Amino acid sequence: MGKINCIGILTSGGDAPGMNAAIRAVTRAGIAAGLKVKGIYRGYEGLINNEIQDFTTENVSNIIQRGGTILKTARSKEFLTPEGRKKAYDNMVEQGIDALIIIGGNGSLEGARIFAEEFDVPCIGLPGTIDNDLSGTDSTIGYDTTLNTIVQCVDKIRDTATSHERIFFIEVMGRDAGFLAQNSAIASGAEAAIIPEDSSNADQLEQFISRGIRKSKSSSMVIVSESPKCGAMYYADRVKKEYPEFDVRVSILGHLQRGGSPSAYDRILASRLGVGAITALREGQRNVMIGIKNDEVVYVPFCNAIKSDKPVKKELINVLGILSI
Amino acid sequence: MGKINCIGILTSGGDAPGMNAAIRAVTRAGIAAGLKVKGIYRGYEGLINNEIQDFTTENVSNIIQRGGTILKTARSKEFLTPEGRKKAYDNMVEQGIDALIIIGGNGSLEGARIFAEEFDVPCIGLPGTIDNDLSGTDSTIGYDTTLNTIVQCVDKIRDTATSHERIFFIEVMGRDAGFLAQNSAIASGAEAAIIPEDSSNADQLEQFISRGIRKSKSSSMVIVSESPKCGAMYYADRVKKEYPEFDVRVSILGHLQRGGSPSAYDRILASRLGVGAITALREGQRNVMIGIKNDEVVYVPFCNAIKSDKPVKKELINVLGILSI
Amino acid sequence: MGKINCIGILTSGGDAPGMNAAIRAVTRAGIAAGLKVKGIYRGYEGLINNEIQDFTTENVSNIIQRGGTILKTARSKEFLTPEGRKKAYDNMVEQGIDALIIIGGNGSLEGARIFAEEFDVPCIGLPGTIDNDLSGTDSTIGYDTTLNTIVQCVDKIRDTATSHERIFFIEVMGRDAGFLAQNSAIASGAEAAIIPEDSSNADQLEQFISRGIRKSKSSSMVIVSESPKCGAMYYADRVKKEYPEFDVRVSILGHLQRGGSPSAYDRILASRLGVGAITALREGQRNVMIGIKNDEVVYVPFCNAIKSDKPVKKELINVLGILSI
Amino acid sequence: MGKINCIGILTSGGDAPGMNAAIRAVTRAGIAAGLKVKGIYRGYEGLINNEIQDFTTENVSNIIQRGGTILKTARSKEFLTPEGRKKAYDNMVEQGIDALIIIGGNGSLEGARIFAEEFDVPCIGLPGTIDNDLSGTDSTIGYDTTLNTIVQCVDKIRDTATSHERIFFIEVMGRDAGFLAQNSAIASGAEAAIIPEDSSNADQLEQFISRGIRKSKSSSMVIVSESPKCGAMYYADRVKKEYPEFDVRVSILGHLQRGGSPSAYDRILASRLGVGAITALREGQRNVMIGIKNDEVVYVPFCNAIKSDKPVKKELINVLGILSI
Repeated sequence: MGKINCIGILTSGGDAPGMNAAIRAVTRAGIAAGLKVKGIYRGYEGLINNEIQDFTTENVSNIIQRGGTILKTARSKEFLTPEGRKKAYDNMVEQGIDALIIIGGNGSLEGARIFAEEFDVPCIGLPGTIDNDLSGTDSTIGYDTTLNTIVQCVDKIRDTATSHERIFFIEVMGRDAGFLAQNSAIASGAEAAIIPEDSSNADQLEQFISRGIRKSKSSSMVIVSESPKCGAMYYADRVKKEYPEFDVRVSILGHLQRGGSPSAYDRILASRLGVGAITALREGQRNVMIGIKNDEVVYVPFCNAIKSDKPVKKELINVLGILSI
Repeated sequence: MGKINCIGILTSGGDAPGMNAAIRAVTRAGIAAGLKVKGIYRGYEGLINNEIQDFTTENVSNIIQRGGTILKTARSKEFLTPEGRKKAYDNMVEQGIDALIIIGGNGSLEGARIFAEEFDVPCIGLPGTIDNDLSGTDSTIGYDTTLNTIVQCVDKIRDTATSHERIFFIEVMGRDAGFLAQNSAIASGAEAAIIPEDSSNADQLEQFISRGIRKSKSSSMVIVSESPKCGAMYYADRVKKEYPEFDVRVSILGHLQRGGSPSAYDRILASRLGVGAITALREGQRNVMIGIKNDEVVYVPFCNAIKSDKPVKKELINVLGILSI
Repeated sequence: MGKINCIGILTSGGDAPGMNAAIRAVTRAGIAAGLKVKGIYRGYEGLINNEIQDFTTENVSNIIQRGGTILKTARSKEFLTPEGRKKAYDNMVEQGIDALIIIGGNGSLEGARIFAEEFDVPCIGLPGTIDNDLSGTDSTIGYDTTLNTIVQCVDKIRDTATSHERIFFIEVMGRDAGFLAQNSAIASGAEAAIIPEDSSNADQLEQFISRGIRKSKSSSMVIVSESPKCGAMYYADRVKKEYPEFDVRVSILGHLQRGGSPSAYDRILASRLGVGAITALREGQRNVMIGIKNDEVVYVPFCNAIKSDKPVKKELINVLGILSI
Repeated sequence: MGKINCIGILTSGGDAPGMNAAIRAVTRAGIAAGLKVKGIYRGYEGLINNEIQDFTTENVSNIIQRGGTILKTARSKEFLTPEGRKKAYDNMVEQGIDALIIIGGNGSLEGARIFAEEFDVPCIGLPGTIDNDLSGTDSTIGYDTTLNTIVQCVDKIRDTATSHERIFFIEVMGRDAGFLAQNSAIASGAEAAIIPEDSSNADQLEQFISRGIRKSKSSSMVIVSESPKCGAMYYADRVKKEYPEFDVRVSILGHLQRGGSPSAYDRILASRLGVGAITALREGQRNVMIGIKNDEVVYVPFCNAIKSDKPVKKELINVLGILSI
């Protein structure tokens, strides 16, 4: 593929706050670099169905502060098939799109990796997911906002927990990644976090609770990563059975964690990554995710970004353990 | 009972934002009127167990903005028995408390009514409940804050609903009173509210949804009052069965609805009612709830306050119906 | 003028949170009633300059939660002249607009009153101003949101005031109306409010401060209504001169008071008033402001609405006095 | 000095959100490590005046979410003198305090450096300032919260700016450091930031504005770092003079920038630094500031921390320039 004159931009997978700030940054930086920009609706689905629109700076005006994604998003089954990807490619060619910018999580970048391989299309990924489970970047777009949303919810629940002297098990998002649970537990002064990465945590539960009892704390909150089997309800039931004298409650924060106006951090992150995506394209980069590592923009090959081996730091587990005495 | 020199104040039942502002107002207005003020912890339970503390203005300093209740709250089973109430009365006498100010909902004021009858104790109630289900007052302490909390949560969910083109059933508090559901539906631009008062609403569900389909709206939100049988999950399941092509989700807002810093309205309401409680006592009132009706402080006999016949206005049901076209 | 088939809607004067919710309600209720709806941009200025656009429900989709006004607003000098109003009328006729809905404050409704008289045009006003200074309605669209915004700002300032043991003079909007200052003072636990309606307040200043000193309070906040001569700066200077030992600071909240997502109350108010405006038109009403009085929709003749004699309740002045002991 | 058994903790200088989270972390980690902990009120002033109190975990219960500092803060003139510092030292000895933890900014750490030199007292500093102007740490406690507060204020002002098509000059804190201005400008989609570090920015002002005019943007916002001579008012006046056709406004955010509940980031930062301070002490460190560099806890000698050479990244200046096209 030769010179890039026109880029297409899409958001894919679960929506995350800051995606609009990223769309804005890519669009404006693209136009500033002399490129044509096209918005693709509903992720890969819209590429297959040709839901594509020319974008000017006006299309991205006054959206930096909005949650969700103006491009809408979807999880496309058809794009998982070679036929679906072929349709997507044909539409790209027909629309004159020379390169794709994909904002999304693990699955979306994996889709980009395969698509780029099959059709030799320059693809640039931006890490857009509240779960923070992409490697090669300190943070993903949406993570900081969701962390703040959780902490604000837990602050409210603490009012009730303290007034009634209850134990709350609060379930948060991040199925396979404990960043949200671990860090929201530290930030909200919870007793414990139960995260998928740390199998010992489940057993620490009793330890935390019983320590709480001995100290006759007036209220306790435990943050639990969502899980099909071992979510907040599971742990609450266990404690209810073993400590029937306790007033145990469950709160599942649910979908409100995805929405809301992005935090300053996420808007700045999205802006830097969006500008970085256009710079990368112009430098001839392709099939990389743009990340921020140690406060510097970096290019991360797709295969490295999605390998899902980003650990929760031991130091943070230690900090929570010490502060919940 | 003769001249009142010392009052006791307690919060009872479910906690509600603004209870602290009410405690502050009663305490300060009481002291300004030359009364001694005692704080009673954990509601009627603390009266029975003698958890009582002298209060000065410093005890209520810097609490007007805090959710929950510094006096803590509980639902006392013992106070439901004559023996429990006798213990409570004996403690009152021993502590030199001449009158009680009770901040709470339906059950708490009913307890006050019985207690006042049995022991000839001057009791003044303040309506403190997020459900707004007390008669004789336009609003209860906590209702406006919770309404705002719900609306802010639904605003966040809308970001996701719109980005993914989903239908959301969102369950809110207010078991037997539809104020929160009806008004949050209007305020958040939801399609419909399903409330206990309006049995026709359940059938309107299909009508709303199918209208939404015809208009090919990109997302829909329905607010449902919590209910043991017919909560958000029930309606979501019905829609999933009848319209399998829809992406239907459920969100149960849960306990976070009770917490948080009170709204300006609730702080002002609590301040006016707290001052009103002291004025009422000095005017020789007893066994009344202080309310605000048409922007004037009023005294409502307990039996009228708790009769639970405050309807959701037909006009509001009409407004939602028109605006969700 | 005969049957009304098409309405024009505009926002005028200072913007207020909830104006978008009102635009949405008028548009949807109008369409539900079978009317054509046209949006007029930049207030009366846009009527004169023919900046008018057909509105469908999509134009008002997803705006209930947004501050500002999508119709933009202006203060039109040309509309103050007979020539300007003639141009506006001619455009109305040309556009086929049979009636006008005006969302705005005092000046905007006065403009509507004159316009309606001169050209026999049915005009309906909605009270849209953060100042709450329109008679005949308990509250104006935007007032509750601004009150909450102020209280949240003062909560933040209190953190600093308490940490540093300072006296803060905080200036808020509401030039000729003390509602914002008086009620935000109660809601934020301030020592005093200095409002235009109560000339005695200025002298109460010293009394409050000196009382604060005797009680050795650690911090004090005084809320001051904006005023060309006697704003926060004026009072701060006076106190600095008389009590040089104090650490006195000034904060002028400024324009941020007008913006932000509207509160639940303002959205519901705007929705009810918007539906009420269409109902009024269909009932043959004209030249009235729609208000809510004692929780009922009422029609207020323009001349009564704008007469500016809505007082700050004595009870509220009394409540603040008692609670700031 | 020998084994450390008892530590004193104080906050000094301007208050910053997250200071309470740091106090909590130091206290709990100290107690967990077997140390006695004493809270010193009003910064160095309280050390001189012996305002010192024993701290248990209860003293720091339920404060992680609160703005300001429960230890209060002050700028001590007496501590600038050798006599003052001698008094402070004598009190330390008398109270049995073996080491000091100081939470504060530039001046506070400089004070600690001198004190530690003069009296051979182990001092550990935590970077607590909204300005982010300490070297050796990626962020200071309070910076992220203030950045979010500013962005939320600018979001509100944008509602008004857009509705009225105005140009706003918004002044933010950070006298000698442009981090708050530069990053809030990126995060709020402002046209430009005028910061002390970049003398070329002032001249870029006209360029930005005139570019905005040519593009007929409907509103513009410029963020200005506070400055005695060249604040927001100065630039607004210049623009008013050169472009009288513009509707130019000024907003000075002022003291509300210091307050409010800390963000998740600041609470986690404060918790990690607080635990790190105790670890450092136990490792025999002294006269270092605890920082976080590239997500790792680091020890920074006082002289390096306060040398004030932390630059605003060129990349961020570039990002803002590109995105404000």
